[in-house]
Amino acid sequence: MTVKQLLFLATSVLLLFWTGRHASAEPQGHIVRIAELEIDPTQIESYKAALKEEIETSIRVEPGVLTLYAVSVKNQPAQIRIFETYADEAAYRAHVETPHFKKYKTRTQEMVKSLKLIETEPIILGTKPR
Amino acid sequence: MTVKQLLFLATSVLLLFWTGRHASAEPQGHIVRIAELEIDPTQIESYKAALKEEIETSIRVEPGVLTLYAVSVKNQPAQIRIFETYADEAAYRAHVETPHFKKYKTRTQEMVKSLKLIETEPIILGTKPR
Repeated sequence: MTVKQLLFLATSVLLLFWTGRHASAEPQGHIVRIAELEIDPTQIESYKAALKEEIETSIRVEPGVLTLYAVSVKNQPAQIRIFETYADEAAYRAHVETPHFKKYKTRTQEMVKSLKLIETEPIILGTKPR
Repeated sequence: MTVKQLLFLATSVLLLFWTGRHASAEPQGHIVRIAELEIDPTQIESYKAALKEEIETSIRVEPGVLTLYAVSVKNQPAQIRIFETYADEAAYRAHVETPHFKKYKTRTQEMVKSLKLIETEPIILGTKPR
């Protein structure tokens, strides 16, 4: 086998691995949840700092946490929406038992005025193959 | 340079390219919008078929369409939520002018009882580096 053939093979294997994992736009047992929160207007910056830390840690250390997209409604910074995707039910259950999630809950309990959790059925989770 | 070194180099370059593009969880000028729709209960399956086709095409042919995550609220199949992420404002404006988007709008105009578009400010778009 030549160097060129070997390189081609290595690239193909990597690309296969890479696209095979994520090209599918069809949900496959994923758990998708939307959280709607209202934050105490005097504590928005503290809340956002706690939320960012929690999301960064979850994405980094939990294999089954696929997306935690957090946004605020335009011109209503106290209105937060989080679009959460978990690989499966077990990943979701594991997430809410992690130390970083519990820390976030404790740290923000006085900041959150209301929390509505919307369970969903995925129709199509369209995302760029990367 | 040995074959091993070459393979290592090729793999490193690919991984760098791969993680560099997507590991960041920080929004960078992304446009995020949430659409909330109510569908005529007698036309849910037709609506979902049209929506899936539109999303598959958008993700496939539009480089600036990053996510179109469509779900229905659990036990309320007529209540649809779509979490839309575009690379930037131009990508969003281009999207609504595409033939496939216009076809979807025409095809579903009699199916959609109400549509609410929520503009947002991204806080953190946490997603798995792939």
